[in-house]
Formats: sequence, structure tokens, C-alpha cells
Amino acid sequence: MKTVSGGVCAAKGFTANGIHCGIRKNKQKKDLSLIVSERRAHAAAVYTTNLVKGAPLTVTKSHLADGFAQAVICNSGNANTCNANGVEVAEAVCTLVEKETGIPACDVIVASTGVIGQPLDITPIKDGMAALAAGLGNGSADAAEGIMTTDTVKKEIAVSFEIGGKTCTVGGIAKGSGMIHPNMATMLVFLTTDAAISAEMLKKALSTDIQSTFHMVSVDGDTSTNDMVAILANGMAENPEIVSDGEDFQIFMKALNTVTVYLCRKIAGDGEGATKLLECRVTGAISDTAAKTAAKSVICSSLVKAAMFGADANWGRILCALGYSGADIDPNHVKVSFRSAAGEVVVCEGGAGVIFSEEKAKEVLTEKEIEILIDLGSGTGAATAWGCDLSYDYVKINGDYRT
Amino acid sequence: MKTVSGGVCAAKGFTANGIHCGIRKNKQKKDLSLIVSERRAHAAAVYTTNLVKGAPLTVTKSHLADGFAQAVICNSGNANTCNANGVEVAEAVCTLVEKETGIPACDVIVASTGVIGQPLDITPIKDGMAALAAGLGNGSADAAEGIMTTDTVKKEIAVSFEIGGKTCTVGGIAKGSGMIHPNMATMLVFLTTDAAISAEMLKKALSTDIQSTFHMVSVDGDTSTNDMVAILANGMAENPEIVSDGEDFQIFMKALNTVTVYLCRKIAGDGEGATKLLECRVTGAISDTAAKTAAKSVICSSLVKAAMFGADANWGRILCALGYSGADIDPNHVKVSFRSAAGEVVVCEGGAGVIFSEEKAKEVLTEKEIEILIDLGSGTGAATAWGCDLSYDYVKINGDYRT
Repeated sequence: MKTVSGGVCAAKGFTANGIHCGIRKNKQKKDLSLIVSERRAHAAAVYTTNLVKGAPLTVTKSHLADGFAQAVICNSGNANTCNANGVEVAEAVCTLVEKETGIPACDVIVASTGVIGQPLDITPIKDGMAALAAGLGNGSADAAEGIMTTDTVKKEIAVSFEIGGKTCTVGGIAKGSGMIHPNMATMLVFLTTDAAISAEMLKKALSTDIQSTFHMVSVDGDTSTNDMVAILANGMAENPEIVSDGEDFQIFMKALNTVTVYLCRKIAGDGEGATKLLECRVTGAISDTAAKTAAKSVICSSLVKAAMFGADANWGRILCALGYSGADIDPNHVKVSFRSAAGEVVVCEGGAGVIFSEEKAKEVLTEKEIEILIDLGSGTGAATAWGCDLSYDYVKINGDYRT
Repeated sequence: MKTVSGGVCAAKGFTANGIHCGIRKNKQKKDLSLIVSERRAHAAAVYTTNLVKGAPLTVTKSHLADGFAQAVICNSGNANTCNANGVEVAEAVCTLVEKETGIPACDVIVASTGVIGQPLDITPIKDGMAALAAGLGNGSADAAEGIMTTDTVKKEIAVSFEIGGKTCTVGGIAKGSGMIHPNMATMLVFLTTDAAISAEMLKKALSTDIQSTFHMVSVDGDTSTNDMVAILANGMAENPEIVSDGEDFQIFMKALNTVTVYLCRKIAGDGEGATKLLECRVTGAISDTAAKTAAKSVICSSLVKAAMFGADANWGRILCALGYSGADIDPNHVKVSFRSAAGEVVVCEGGAGVIFSEEKAKEVLTEKEIEILIDLGSGTGAATAWGCDLSYDYVKINGDYRT
């Protein structure tokens, strides 16, 4: 497996584009993205668990009921959520894609991100669709830009691998937390692959993968109304179709996981106001489930996040977050260390503090990527969660006046 | 029922004191408090649900096994948690109280708040105990000061009421979120009453009351290792002892609730970095439990808290927090309004935005006490939760270097 360039356009038969159509006032910011597959593709998606769901999710869910799709349309600047006419507008956007590309509206995945509770004016989308479609090409980077809100960096990646002697590719773009009118942190991820894989196995691959990847990311604990991870597989790599578990499926899963873990780290490290990427690795848990619960609790703790912002080796807060996580842990067996490019420092063993150099700890925690390593000393369960620190800028971004 | 002065010393037979003994470096800050009842009292307490529990909680739990206590000793500046010798030190502190006051160590409630994972040196407590005991008197305010960490205001209250022709009193002191070496937000509440009430009914009163009071407060979502709410009832009001449900018990519950709600609001409004008290009132839920879940989710949302800091009527974040709360709600029935001393403004009806004056909303949200009123439109369940906004100072207080 190797990393290749091209993002969502790296796999055969995929083109993309992103433009500024006018949903956002700032003309420097792209706000509409389109990804198209040459052939109708197997498709799967997972959605937010929030009971308040964006209208685009309802429409996408209905379009994916048959397991097929051929395009993804996504706007930023407005979430099209909590509006009386949301579903109608989302359907109309798909129809605009159909008019311009010939792809049936029912094969279009639609997504939106931005402020909620403000009707989405379809005019700029209507006006921009021709240019958007005309510009389709090797435009993964443009598409990645068009879905950004307060993200500070574009997020794209692709990897290639072999199945049955054929080179296959999986690529993806993502957006994390942020919006031009600060609102809620919507995570959107669009993945493309030319691997031939049945709709059923594609769904299985995605729903399995997200358990240890996107479900293990937290920026601020608020689950958006518009989260979506979607994947298109158009089969143009011409490998023998993956229709069941086995070696080929495992190879595909590994490639998919490489792409999703990369995007998770990118999303976490670019969380609103973040100055640092936090990776919490829990081992020695009584089960993988317990490890996940524990790791997420640590990553979500405001106090741990604030301590990391201050490069403070305040491990008591980590013990505290483990203790209230709900995971079955024995505090007396817990070992904690911090690791980064500057080295590793053990701060707690057997649930109690050990003597360590505060200077060394400060050095370790001043780096941009911090690993919080926790051994629960009770079993073989393990998990990793990703997050970021809590900074003044998080408050600034989200406390500023909306209008 | 009327509010009276005196805090924990308002009820007959209670004295208190608070001094600086030297656990903290800053000599201006008191760090050791003692509350004593003239007679052995019925006693009850509730503790943190965190699996990592402070050593003082273990000792207190064992001392309260018989339902009696006569004194409360509490230090700030060190939580005596995650230390190898924690239980031993907490027991030793109780023995120091016994030596000085004659009250058996097994009738002493012990509590600590401050940094965790650093051994508690008993020397200053030993050296200060004589002065602490000698100064016992009408010192509720001093005791309230001695348990403060980063609290900015003392929290004390008392109310008197009649049972069986006798005047009874319930009083309390509390500390909220903060510490001299920023660590975790420990909530400590000590209540005293001269009402005669059986140990069993006292326990019932406390454990019932906290469900709608202290359990409904959140500053930052981190459950401390050292939380404790304790009550002493010495019977010196000479009312007919409350031994069962009935009118007298209800009168007592009402007085207790007046004291605890007051302290909840004080704790929430004085959360770390807080500039505003938030009160979220949910009505129209399918059950009280659903209402509680929904109200707490809103109060705990970092995005809602940041919006309130910015006086931003960003109601979409409230819908979002309701949606992921886990409570069974129908988004299409939700009505939201903001209310304060400056008036009330409805921002959402039927799950969608309504036209409102942004200027008026800004005015309402610029006040120091904000009510978030949510009608779920699905039943008669109701609940109230208390919290505070998320400010730069929260990050500053908790991101600063620990040592």
C-alpha cells in the first residue's frame, strides 16, 4: 500500500470540483463542491446519531436506499437544518445536479454544513451549477476547500493497493469543526474508490471502520445534526469483485482504515481553536469496548484539554476522566505517560503519582502532537481516540456574535 | 419559611470556624474548616460517582456507617486523592479533631479539595487544630471561606421553618469549581439542621433532594473524585422527631430544597471563569427523567455555553444539544425562548426558527442570569438544570501551569 496524490480523484473514474457560488459572502471562500463518478457506483453512508437531523441527511438516506450513487454535492455556509422547507430544498439541489450532469437526482448524495435554522437560498447554487459541472476534473483540492467552514487546512488523502493483480485506490476528503457563522462542528467525509466491491460488503466495511475511527474523534463533545461519512465504489479498477469476507476484503479494509485514520487525525488536529493534536491510546482494558469508553472520556474532558493547552502534566485530571468514564477500571492499576517528538515521561503508576521531571514533561507537552498513553493493567482491550486541546480561540470562535 | 443569617451556625447547637493553617502558601487564604454540633447528630452524605474516589470519602463513608456524626473537618489546597497513604492521613486528621474536641474520630466527617496526586502533609493541620477548635463559634463565614479554592464568592445560607410548633433551621455552606493549583472542580456542601429527624428519613431527604438539585449542576462536565454533600441533624429544635413521610417531612424537604437550590445557583454562577449563571428549564417532556436528561445536555454543551458568553441567541446549538441528549424528543415540537431581567424573546417554535429581534435577544442575553426555556411539547415532564457560560477565563484558569 502506498500514499498517492489526487484525493477523491485518485481512484479511476472520479472527477471533482469546488467553487464559490455565493452562499458565503466572502468571495475568497469556496462554498459548493461536486464529486462525480464516471459509472454508477455502489455507495454507503453513515449519519449523525443526533435526533435533530439535517434535511440533506434525510434526502441522502432515501437516495442510498438502493445501495447506488454516482455523485456527491455539498455546500458550506448553511446547514439546511431546522428549516420548514429543508427536504424540498435538498431535493431541488439534487435535481440541479441531474439537469447539469445527467446523473439521476436519486443517485446524488447531498450534504450541507454551516449555520442552522436559516432557510437555504437555492439561487446561488442554481446560478453556480453549470460552472461547477463544467470545471469537473482533477479537482479534489477544490472540492476539499468547498466543504471547509472554520477548518484551517484542507484534508485529503489517497492510497493505492493491489487486489487480484489489479491496482485499486481509495481516496477521501473531509471537513472538521468550524463554520463561517460559528455554529456547530459538522464532520463531513467523502470517500471514493475504484475497487469492485458489493454494496453489502461496502456497507460492512464502512460501518465497521468508523467504530474505531470517526466515532473516536471529539473536538468539543457536541454531536452535529449534519455529520455524514459517505463512500462511492465504482469498480473501475476491475479487480475480482469483493463479495464476502476474506483476504481481499481485509486488504480493502486496511487501505480504507489508512485513509480514515489520516482524516481523523487531520480533523482532530484542526478542531476549532486547536493548537495541538491529542491521541489517547488505552491498553490493558478488560475489553476493547471499555478501552474505547475510557479513551473517549479522556479526550472529551475539558480539564484535560485545557491542561494540554497549557502544557501541564496534570495527570490527576486523566485519572478523574477515567474514573467517571463508565468503563470498568481499577484505579490502582492505572499507568499514565505522555509521549511526543520530544520523548516520553511516565507520570503515574499503580494509580498514584511517580516522581518525574516537570521540565521534561513541559518539553514533551509543548510539541504539536501529544500521545496520552494509558495502561489500565487489567486485560488486553485497546483503543485509540483523537482530539485537541481547549484554547482561548475555541471560546473566541464560538462566543463571537453569530450575525 | 424565612431566610435567616448564620449559615451552618444558624441551627441550634452548631459552631464553626475556618483558619489558614499553612496547606496553602498564600497566607491570605483560609485552608482548614471545622463544623461542630453540641450533640451527636444523625448524619447522611452522598458522594461522587467517580470510580477514582478521594481517600477522605472512603473514611467518611466508614464513619457514617452507623448514621451518626458530630463534626466536619475539611481542608482546601490538596485533595488527598491518588496518594498511597491517603486513607491513613484522612484518619489521622479525624484523630486530631478527637484530640482537640473530644469528639470520637469515628463521628468526624472528613473532606479535602485541591490538587490530586500530591501527598497531603498533615503537619500544618496538626499545628493549626488547637487554634481552629479554640475559635469555634458563630464562624459559618470563616468555614465557608476555608473550603474555597478558585471560588470567588463565599456560599452560605440558612432558612427557618416551623414543625410541631417548634422553630427549626436548616443551613449550609458550599464550594464550587476551582483550586489554587488548578485541578478539578470539586463540589463540597455541608448542611446543618437542628430539626429532629431519624437517620433513615434524613438519608431519604438528602438522597431525594440531590436528584433535582446538585445532580442538575454542571460547570464543565468533569465529575470530581472528591464531591460530597453531607448533612448533620442534631434534633436540638425539639420538634417531634420526623420518622416517616407526612406533612412534617414535606416541610423539612421544602426547607432543605430552598437551601440546596440556593447553593446550586451559587455554585453554577461561580463556576470557573463564569460571567453568567445559566438556568435551563425544560417543560413538556414525556417524563421528568427525559426533562432532566434534556436540560443537562443543554447546560453541558460547550457550544451553548460559548454562545451564552458571547450573548449570541444561537438557538440551533440548543436544538442540537437536545437532539443528542439521549432523551426521547420530537424536534418538530420544540419551542425555545431566552429570558432574563431584560425580558423574554422566543427564538424557535415547532423546531424551526421564528423571526425575532437580534437587538432584543442581545439585550436579554447580556444580563448576568439567563433562563433558557424549552417546551418540548410532548407531555408534562419538567426539570431545571444550572450551569454557566464558557469564557476565556475558564481556559486560563485550567490551562495555566500547575506548579
